[in-house]
Amino acid sequence: MKLYDYPTAPSPRRVRIFLAEKGVEAETVTVDLAKGEQFADDFRGRNPDCAVPVLELDDGTCISEVLAICQYIEELHPQPSLLGGTPEERARISMWTAKVELQGLSAAADAVRNTLKAFDGRSVLGPVGYEQIPELAERGFARVDDFMHRLDAQLADNPFVAGDRFTIADIAAFVMVDFMKWVRTNIPEDCTSVSRWYDEVSQRPSAAA
Amino acid sequence: MKLYDYPTAPSPRRVRIFLAEKGVEAETVTVDLAKGEQFADDFRGRNPDCAVPVLELDDGTCISEVLAICQYIEELHPQPSLLGGTPEERARISMWTAKVELQGLSAAADAVRNTLKAFDGRSVLGPVGYEQIPELAERGFARVDDFMHRLDAQLADNPFVAGDRFTIADIAAFVMVDFMKWVRTNIPEDCTSVSRWYDEVSQRPSAAA
Repeated sequence: MKLYDYPTAPSPRRVRIFLAEKGVEAETVTVDLAKGEQFADDFRGRNPDCAVPVLELDDGTCISEVLAICQYIEELHPQPSLLGGTPEERARISMWTAKVELQGLSAAADAVRNTLKAFDGRSVLGPVGYEQIPELAERGFARVDDFMHRLDAQLADNPFVAGDRFTIADIAAFVMVDFMKWVRTNIPEDCTSVSRWYDEVSQRPSAAA
Repeated sequence: MKLYDYPTAPSPRRVRIFLAEKGVEAETVTVDLAKGEQFADDFRGRNPDCAVPVLELDDGTCISEVLAICQYIEELHPQPSLLGGTPEERARISMWTAKVELQGLSAAADAVRNTLKAFDGRSVLGPVGYEQIPELAERGFARVDDFMHRLDAQLADNPFVAGDRFTIADIAAFVMVDFMKWVRTNIPEDCTSVSRWYDEVSQRPSAAA
Protein backbone atom coordinates (compact mmCIF):
# COMPACT_ATOMS: atom_id res chain seq x y z
CA MET A 1 0.00 0.00 0.00
CA LYS A 2 1.49 3.34 -1.12
CA LEU A 3 0.12 6.81 -0.53
CA TYR A 4 0.84 9.41 -3.21
CA ASP A 5 1.16 12.54 -1.16
CA TYR A 6 2.30 16.16 -0.96
CA PRO A 7 3.31 17.60 2.42
CA THR A 8 1.52 20.96 2.42
CA ALA A 9 -1.68 20.13 0.48
CA PRO A 10 -4.87 19.84 2.55
CA SER A 11 -6.44 16.75 0.94
CA PRO A 12 -3.54 14.31 1.44
CA ARG A 13 -3.13 15.69 4.96
CA ARG A 14 -6.66 14.48 5.75
CA VAL A 15 -5.52 10.96 4.85
CA ARG A 16 -2.24 11.27 6.79
CA ILE A 17 -4.11 12.32 9.94
CA PHE A 18 -6.59 9.48 9.42
CA LEU A 19 -3.72 6.96 9.16
CA ALA A 20 -1.97 8.45 12.21
CA GLU A 21 -5.16 8.15 14.30
CA LYS A 22 -5.37 4.49 13.26
CA GLY A 23 -1.69 3.89 13.94
CA VAL A 24 -1.29 2.59 10.40
CA GLU A 25 1.95 3.24 8.56
CA ALA A 26 1.92 3.49 4.78
CA GLU A 27 4.77 4.11 2.42
CA THR A 28 4.39 7.61 1.01
CA VAL A 29 5.54 8.84 -2.38
CA THR A 30 5.78 12.60 -2.79
CA VAL A 31 4.24 13.99 -5.98
CA ASP A 32 5.83 17.43 -6.25
CA LEU A 33 2.85 19.65 -7.04
CA ALA A 34 5.07 22.75 -7.19
CA LYS A 35 6.99 21.13 -10.04
CA GLY A 36 3.80 19.90 -11.77
CA GLU A 37 4.55 16.21 -11.26
CA GLN A 38 0.80 15.57 -10.93
CA PHE A 39 0.50 16.25 -14.66
CA ALA A 40 3.15 13.70 -15.68
CA ASP A 41 1.96 10.67 -17.64
CA ASP A 42 2.83 8.09 -14.99
CA PHE A 43 0.84 9.91 -12.34
CA ARG A 44 -2.08 10.52 -14.71
CA GLY A 45 -2.24 6.74 -15.06
CA ARG A 46 -2.90 6.60 -11.32
CA ASN A 47 -5.38 9.48 -11.26
CA PRO A 48 -6.40 11.16 -14.53
CA ASP A 49 -7.68 14.05 -12.41
CA CYS A 50 -4.07 14.91 -11.52
CA ALA A 51 -4.66 15.27 -7.80
CA VAL A 52 -3.30 13.75 -4.61
CA PRO A 53 -3.98 11.77 -2.46
CA VAL A 54 -3.98 8.45 -4.31
CA LEU A 55 -3.74 5.14 -2.47
CA GLU A 56 -2.13 2.43 -4.58
CA LEU A 57 -2.87 -1.13 -3.47
CA ASP A 58 -0.39 -3.96 -3.82
CA ASP A 59 -2.19 -5.23 -6.96
CA GLY A 60 -1.79 -1.82 -8.59
CA THR A 61 -5.39 -0.66 -8.04
CA CYS A 62 -5.43 3.09 -7.45
CA ILE A 63 -8.00 4.78 -5.24
CA SER A 64 -8.29 8.56 -5.39
CA GLU A 65 -10.56 10.92 -3.41
CA VAL A 66 -10.16 11.35 0.34
CA LEU A 67 -13.42 9.74 1.46
CA ALA A 68 -12.90 6.64 -0.68
CA ILE A 69 -9.38 6.17 0.67
CA CYS A 70 -10.42 6.67 4.30
CA GLN A 71 -13.38 4.32 3.96
CA TYR A 72 -11.06 1.65 2.54
CA ILE A 73 -8.54 2.11 5.38
CA GLU A 74 -11.36 1.93 7.96
CA GLU A 75 -12.49 -1.41 6.50
CA LEU A 76 -8.98 -2.85 6.76
CA HIS A 77 -8.30 -1.31 10.18
CA PRO A 78 -11.65 -0.86 11.95
CA GLN A 79 -10.25 0.31 15.30
CA PRO A 80 -10.29 3.02 16.48
CA SER A 81 -13.37 3.74 14.41
CA LEU A 82 -13.36 7.15 12.74
CA LEU A 83 -16.49 6.52 10.63
CA GLY A 84 -18.85 5.31 13.36
CA GLY A 85 -20.03 2.14 15.05
CA THR A 86 -23.79 2.01 14.30
CA PRO A 87 -25.88 2.96 11.25
CA GLU A 88 -27.14 6.08 13.08
CA GLU A 89 -23.66 7.16 14.15
CA ARG A 90 -22.25 6.50 10.69
CA ALA A 91 -25.04 8.61 9.18
CA ARG A 92 -24.36 11.47 11.59
CA ILE A 93 -20.62 11.37 10.87
CA SER A 94 -21.20 11.23 7.10
CA MET A 95 -23.64 14.12 7.37
CA TRP A 96 -21.15 16.30 9.20
CA THR A 97 -18.30 15.33 6.91
CA ALA A 98 -20.43 16.33 3.93
CA LYS A 99 -21.30 19.66 5.56
CA VAL A 100 -17.62 20.39 6.24
CA GLU A 101 -16.72 19.49 2.65
CA LEU A 102 -19.58 21.30 0.89
CA GLN A 103 -19.73 24.41 3.07
CA GLY A 104 -16.25 24.66 4.58
CA LEU A 105 -13.55 23.06 2.48
CA SER A 106 -15.06 24.02 -0.88
CA ALA A 107 -15.40 27.63 0.26
CA ALA A 108 -11.84 27.59 1.61
CA ALA A 109 -10.62 26.27 -1.75
CA ASP A 110 -12.49 29.10 -3.50
CA ALA A 111 -10.83 31.64 -1.19
CA VAL A 112 -7.32 30.21 -1.44
CA ARG A 113 -7.21 29.25 -5.12
CA ASN A 114 -8.73 32.54 -6.31
CA THR A 115 -6.47 34.70 -4.13
CA LEU A 116 -2.90 33.38 -4.12
CA LYS A 117 -0.68 34.09 -7.12
CA ALA A 118 0.58 30.51 -6.98
CA PHE A 119 -2.86 29.40 -8.27
CA ASP A 120 -3.02 31.93 -11.12
CA GLY A 121 -4.54 30.01 -14.06
CA ARG A 122 -5.13 27.01 -11.77
CA SER A 123 -8.17 28.08 -9.78
CA VAL A 124 -9.73 24.63 -10.06
CA LEU A 125 -8.03 21.43 -8.92
CA GLY A 126 -7.28 19.17 -11.87
CA PRO A 127 -5.75 19.09 -15.31
CA VAL A 128 -7.65 22.01 -16.89
CA GLY A 129 -6.45 25.57 -16.32
CA TYR A 130 -9.08 28.06 -15.17
CA GLU A 131 -8.44 31.72 -14.49
CA GLN A 132 -9.01 33.13 -11.02
CA ILE A 133 -12.32 34.88 -10.30
CA PRO A 134 -11.78 37.64 -7.70
CA GLU A 135 -15.49 37.73 -6.77
CA LEU A 136 -15.33 34.02 -6.02
CA ALA A 137 -12.41 34.57 -3.63
CA GLU A 138 -14.48 37.19 -1.82
CA ARG A 139 -17.48 34.87 -1.66
CA GLY A 140 -15.21 32.08 -0.40
CA PHE A 141 -14.02 34.19 2.55
CA ALA A 142 -17.63 35.09 3.42
CA ARG A 143 -18.80 31.47 3.18
CA VAL A 144 -15.95 30.22 5.38
CA ASP A 145 -16.95 32.83 7.97
CA ASP A 146 -20.59 31.64 7.77
CA PHE A 147 -19.49 28.06 8.16
CA MET A 148 -17.22 28.76 11.13
CA HIS A 149 -20.28 30.21 12.89
CA ARG A 150 -22.43 27.17 12.06
CA LEU A 151 -19.64 24.92 13.30
CA ASP A 152 -19.44 27.03 16.45
CA ALA A 153 -23.11 26.38 17.20
CA GLN A 154 -22.51 22.63 16.81
CA LEU A 155 -19.35 22.68 18.95
CA ALA A 156 -21.08 24.68 21.67
CA ASP A 157 -23.24 21.60 22.29
CA ASN A 158 -20.82 18.81 21.38
CA PRO A 159 -17.18 18.10 22.22
CA PHE A 160 -16.46 17.08 18.61
CA VAL A 161 -17.89 17.96 15.20
CA ALA A 162 -20.12 14.89 14.90
CA GLY A 163 -20.80 14.37 18.59
CA ASP A 164 -19.04 12.75 21.51
CA ARG A 165 -15.87 11.53 19.90
CA PHE A 166 -13.17 12.40 17.41
CA THR A 167 -14.06 11.30 13.87
CA ILE A 168 -13.28 11.88 10.22
CA ALA A 169 -15.50 14.99 10.41
CA ASP A 170 -13.06 16.58 12.88
CA ILE A 171 -10.17 15.83 10.54
CA ALA A 172 -11.93 17.59 7.66
CA ALA A 173 -12.80 20.65 9.77
CA PHE A 174 -9.34 20.85 11.36
CA VAL A 175 -7.64 20.75 7.96
CA MET A 176 -10.05 23.42 6.70
CA VAL A 177 -9.08 25.80 9.52
CA ASP A 178 -5.40 25.29 8.77
CA PHE A 179 -5.98 25.68 5.02
CA MET A 180 -7.45 29.15 5.62
CA LYS A 181 -4.16 30.21 7.24
CA TRP A 182 -2.73 30.19 3.70
CA VAL A 183 -4.74 33.37 3.17
CA ARG A 184 -4.14 34.69 6.70
CA THR A 185 -7.60 33.89 8.01
CA ASN A 186 -7.97 32.63 11.55
CA ILE A 187 -10.96 31.39 13.53
CA PRO A 188 -13.35 34.37 14.06
CA GLU A 189 -12.94 35.76 17.58
CA ASP A 190 -16.54 35.15 18.55
CA CYS A 191 -16.31 31.45 17.60
CA THR A 192 -15.08 30.46 21.05
CA SER A 193 -16.31 26.87 20.75
CA VAL A 194 -14.42 26.37 17.50
CA SER A 195 -11.30 27.76 19.22
CA ARG A 196 -11.71 25.42 22.20
CA TRP A 197 -12.14 22.43 19.87
CA TYR A 198 -9.25 23.51 17.60
CA ASP A 199 -6.88 23.76 20.57
CA GLU A 200 -7.84 20.29 21.73
CA VAL A 201 -7.49 18.70 18.29
CA SER A 202 -4.14 20.49 17.77
CA GLN A 203 -2.77 18.64 20.79
CA ARG A 204 -3.48 15.20 19.36
CA PRO A 205 -0.29 13.58 18.03
CA SER A 206 -2.01 13.11 14.63
CA ALA A 207 -2.14 16.90 14.14
CA ALA A 208 1.53 16.78 13.19
CA ALA A 209 0.83 14.40 10.29
CA MET B 1 -39.16 7.21 8.33
CA LYS B 2 -40.06 10.43 6.45
CA LEU B 3 -38.26 12.02 3.54
CA TYR B 4 -38.42 15.81 3.31
CA ASP B 5 -38.41 16.35 -0.40
CA TYR B 6 -39.03 18.70 -3.32
CA PRO B 7 -40.05 17.23 -6.69
CA THR B 8 -37.79 19.14 -9.09
CA ALA B 9 -34.64 19.61 -6.99
CA PRO B 10 -31.64 17.41 -7.91
CA SER B 11 -30.44 16.40 -4.43
CA PRO B 12 -33.69 14.86 -3.13
CA ARG B 13 -34.13 13.17 -6.50
CA ARG B 14 -30.87 11.29 -5.90
CA VAL B 15 -32.44 9.85 -2.73
CA ARG B 16 -35.75 9.07 -4.44
CA ILE B 17 -33.97 7.12 -7.19
CA PHE B 18 -31.90 5.32 -4.54
CA LEU B 19 -35.08 4.30 -2.69
CA ALA B 20 -36.78 3.23 -5.93
CA GLU B 21 -33.83 1.00 -6.87
CA LYS B 22 -34.07 -0.60 -3.43
CA GLY B 23 -37.83 -0.98 -3.69
CA VAL B 24 -38.19 0.89 -0.38
CA GLU B 25 -41.17 3.15 0.11
CA ALA B 26 -40.86 6.14 2.42
CA GLU B 27 -43.44 8.73 3.32
CA THR B 28 -42.45 12.00 1.65
CA VAL B 29 -43.19 15.50 2.89
CA THR B 30 -42.86 18.28 0.33
CA VAL B 31 -40.94 21.35 1.47
CA ASP B 32 -41.99 23.99 -1.03
CA LEU B 33 -38.67 25.58 -1.97
CA ALA B 34 -40.41 27.99 -4.35
CA LYS B 35 -42.35 29.39 -1.39
CA GLY B 36 -39.26 29.45 0.87
CA GLU B 37 -40.56 26.79 3.27
CA GLN B 38 -36.98 25.58 3.79
CA PHE B 39 -36.35 28.78 5.75
CA ALA B 40 -39.27 28.28 8.16
CA ASP B 41 -38.39 27.62 11.80
CA ASP B 42 -39.81 24.10 11.93
CA PHE B 43 -37.76 22.99 8.95
CA ARG B 44 -34.61 24.74 10.24
CA GLY B 45 -34.97 22.54 13.31
CA ARG B 46 -34.60 19.55 11.00
CA ASN B 47 -31.74 21.00 8.97
CA PRO B 48 -30.29 24.40 9.93
CA ASP B 49 -28.72 24.49 6.46
CA CYS B 50 -32.24 24.91 5.00
CA ALA B 51 -31.84 22.24 2.32
CA VAL B 52 -33.60 19.07 1.27
CA PRO B 53 -33.35 16.09 1.39
CA VAL B 54 -33.72 15.32 5.08
CA LEU B 55 -34.55 11.85 6.35
CA GLU B 56 -36.40 11.91 9.66
CA LEU B 57 -36.25 8.67 11.63
CA ASP B 58 -39.09 7.46 13.83
CA ASP B 59 -37.31 8.73 16.95
CA GLY B 60 -37.09 12.23 15.44
CA THR B 61 -33.41 12.04 14.46
CA CYS B 62 -32.86 14.01 11.26
CA ILE B 63 -30.21 13.08 8.71
CA SER B 64 -29.38 15.58 6.00
CA GLU B 65 -26.92 15.31 3.07
CA VAL B 66 -27.50 12.82 0.25
CA LEU B 67 -24.58 10.48 0.94
CA ALA B 68 -25.41 10.16 4.64
CA ILE B 69 -29.04 9.34 3.87
CA CYS B 70 -28.18 6.80 1.17
CA GLN B 71 -25.58 5.10 3.37
CA TYR B 72 -28.17 4.78 6.15
CA ILE B 73 -30.77 3.31 3.77
CA GLU B 74 -28.18 0.85 2.39
CA GLU B 75 -27.45 -0.38 5.92
CA LEU B 76 -31.14 -0.99 6.58
CA HIS B 77 -31.82 -2.47 3.14
CA PRO B 78 -28.54 -3.98 1.88
CA GLN B 79 -29.98 -5.52 -1.32
CA PRO B 80 -29.64 -4.68 -4.13
CA SER B 81 -26.34 -3.10 -3.09
CA LEU B 82 -25.76 0.35 -4.55
CA LEU B 83 -22.63 1.08 -2.49
CA GLY B 84 -20.67 -2.10 -3.23
CA GLY B 85 -20.04 -5.57 -1.89
CA THR B 86 -16.31 -5.65 -1.05
CA PRO B 87 -13.91 -3.04 0.38
CA GLU B 88 -12.34 -2.59 -3.06
CA GLU B 89 -15.68 -2.18 -4.82
CA ARG B 90 -16.96 0.19 -2.13
CA ALA B 91 -13.79 2.28 -2.53
CA ARG B 92 -14.21 2.42 -6.32
CA ILE B 93 -17.87 3.44 -6.02
CA SER B 94 -17.07 6.10 -3.38
CA MET B 95 -14.26 7.39 -5.57
CA TRP B 96 -16.52 7.79 -8.58
CA THR B 97 -19.33 9.29 -6.52
CA ALA B 98 -16.89 11.88 -5.16
CA LYS B 99 -15.65 12.67 -8.68
CA VAL B 100 -19.22 13.15 -9.91
CA GLU B 101 -20.01 15.40 -6.94
CA LEU B 102 -16.82 17.47 -6.95
CA GLN B 103 -16.36 17.82 -10.71
CA GLY B 104 -19.86 17.35 -12.12
CA LEU B 105 -22.61 18.28 -9.71
CA SER B 106 -20.76 21.21 -8.12
CA ALA B 107 -19.98 22.63 -11.56
CA ALA B 108 -23.60 22.11 -12.65
CA ALA B 109 -24.77 23.95 -9.54
CA ASP B 110 -22.40 26.82 -10.38
CA ALA B 111 -23.82 26.96 -13.92
CA VAL B 112 -27.48 26.74 -12.91
CA ARG B 113 -27.48 28.90 -9.77
CA ASN B 114 -25.43 31.69 -11.34
CA THR B 115 -27.49 31.78 -14.56
CA LEU B 116 -31.21 31.42 -13.81
CA LYS B 117 -33.10 34.45 -12.52
CA ALA B 118 -34.87 32.21 -10.02
CA PHE B 119 -31.57 31.99 -8.11
CA ASP B 120 -30.84 35.72 -8.12
CA GLY B 121 -29.46 36.47 -4.66
CA ARG B 122 -29.43 32.74 -3.85
CA SER B 123 -26.42 31.52 -5.76
CA VAL B 124 -25.34 29.26 -2.89
CA LEU B 125 -27.57 26.58 -1.35
CA GLY B 126 -28.43 27.44 2.22
CA PRO B 127 -29.72 30.19 4.46
CA VAL B 128 -27.33 32.97 3.43
CA GLY B 129 -28.05 35.03 0.30
CA TYR B 130 -25.17 35.41 -2.15
CA GLU B 131 -25.30 37.35 -5.37
CA GLN B 132 -24.77 35.58 -8.67
CA ILE B 133 -21.30 35.68 -10.24
CA PRO B 134 -21.61 35.59 -14.05
CA GLU B 135 -17.98 34.42 -14.50
CA LEU B 136 -18.72 31.48 -12.22
CA ALA B 137 -21.67 30.47 -14.39
CA GLU B 138 -19.39 30.50 -17.42
CA ARG B 139 -16.76 28.45 -15.58
CA GLY B 140 -19.48 26.03 -14.48
CA PHE B 141 -20.55 25.35 -18.08
CA ALA B 142 -16.92 24.76 -19.09
CA ARG B 143 -16.26 22.44 -16.14
CA VAL B 144 -19.40 20.39 -16.84
CA ASP B 145 -18.21 20.00 -20.43
CA ASP B 146 -14.77 18.85 -19.16
CA PHE B 147 -16.40 16.41 -16.80
CA MET B 148 -18.72 14.96 -19.44
CA HIS B 149 -15.63 14.13 -21.49
CA ARG B 150 -13.88 12.48 -18.51
CA LEU B 151 -17.04 10.51 -17.84
CA ASP B 152 -17.14 9.54 -21.51
CA ALA B 153 -13.66 8.01 -21.26
CA GLN B 154 -14.76 5.97 -18.25
CA LEU B 155 -18.02 4.87 -19.89
CA ALA B 156 -16.21 3.87 -23.07
CA ASP B 157 -14.56 1.10 -21.03
CA ASN B 158 -17.31 0.33 -18.51
CA PRO B 159 -21.05 -0.23 -18.76
CA PHE B 160 -21.67 1.91 -15.68
CA VAL B 161 -19.90 4.83 -13.98
CA ALA B 162 -18.12 2.74 -11.33
CA GLY B 163 -17.77 -0.45 -13.35
CA ASP B 164 -19.94 -3.44 -14.17
CA ARG B 165 -23.15 -2.57 -12.41
CA PHE B 166 -25.52 0.25 -11.59
CA THR B 167 -24.55 2.08 -8.36
CA ILE B 168 -25.01 5.31 -6.44
CA ALA B 169 -22.38 6.86 -8.76
CA ASP B 170 -24.73 6.38 -11.74
CA ILE B 171 -27.52 8.07 -9.82
CA ALA B 172 -25.34 11.10 -9.13
CA ALA B 173 -24.20 11.35 -12.76
CA PHE B 174 -27.68 10.81 -14.19
CA VAL B 175 -29.15 13.54 -11.98
CA MET B 176 -26.31 15.86 -13.00
CA VAL B 177 -27.09 15.41 -16.70
CA ASP B 178 -30.76 16.18 -16.08
CA PHE B 179 -29.88 19.15 -13.85
CA MET B 180 -27.96 20.74 -16.75
CA LYS B 181 -31.16 20.68 -18.83
CA TRP B 182 -32.34 23.53 -16.57
CA VAL B 183 -29.87 25.69 -18.48
CA ARG B 184 -30.51 23.99 -21.83
CA THR B 185 -27.29 21.98 -21.86
CA ASN B 186 -27.34 18.46 -23.24
CA ILE B 187 -24.69 15.76 -23.39
CA PRO B 188 -21.95 16.94 -25.82
CA GLU B 189 -22.38 15.26 -29.22
CA ASP B 190 -18.97 13.62 -29.16
CA CYS B 191 -19.67 11.97 -25.78
CA THR B 192 -21.25 8.93 -27.38
CA SER B 193 -20.55 6.64 -24.42
CA VAL B 194 -22.27 9.03 -22.03
CA SER B 195 -25.25 9.10 -24.43
CA ARG B 196 -25.38 5.29 -24.60
CA TRP B 197 -25.25 5.03 -20.79
CA TYR B 198 -27.77 7.86 -20.29
CA ASP B 199 -30.29 6.14 -22.59
CA GLU B 200 -29.93 2.88 -20.69
CA VAL B 201 -30.27 4.48 -17.25
CA SER B 202 -33.29 6.50 -18.47
CA GLN B 203 -35.10 3.24 -19.17
CA ARG B 204 -34.81 2.00 -15.59
CA PRO B 205 -38.09 2.40 -13.71
CA SER B 206 -36.24 4.39 -11.00
CA ALA B 207 -35.53 7.20 -13.51
CA ALA B 208 -39.12 8.37 -13.03
CA ALA B 209 -38.57 8.91 -9.29
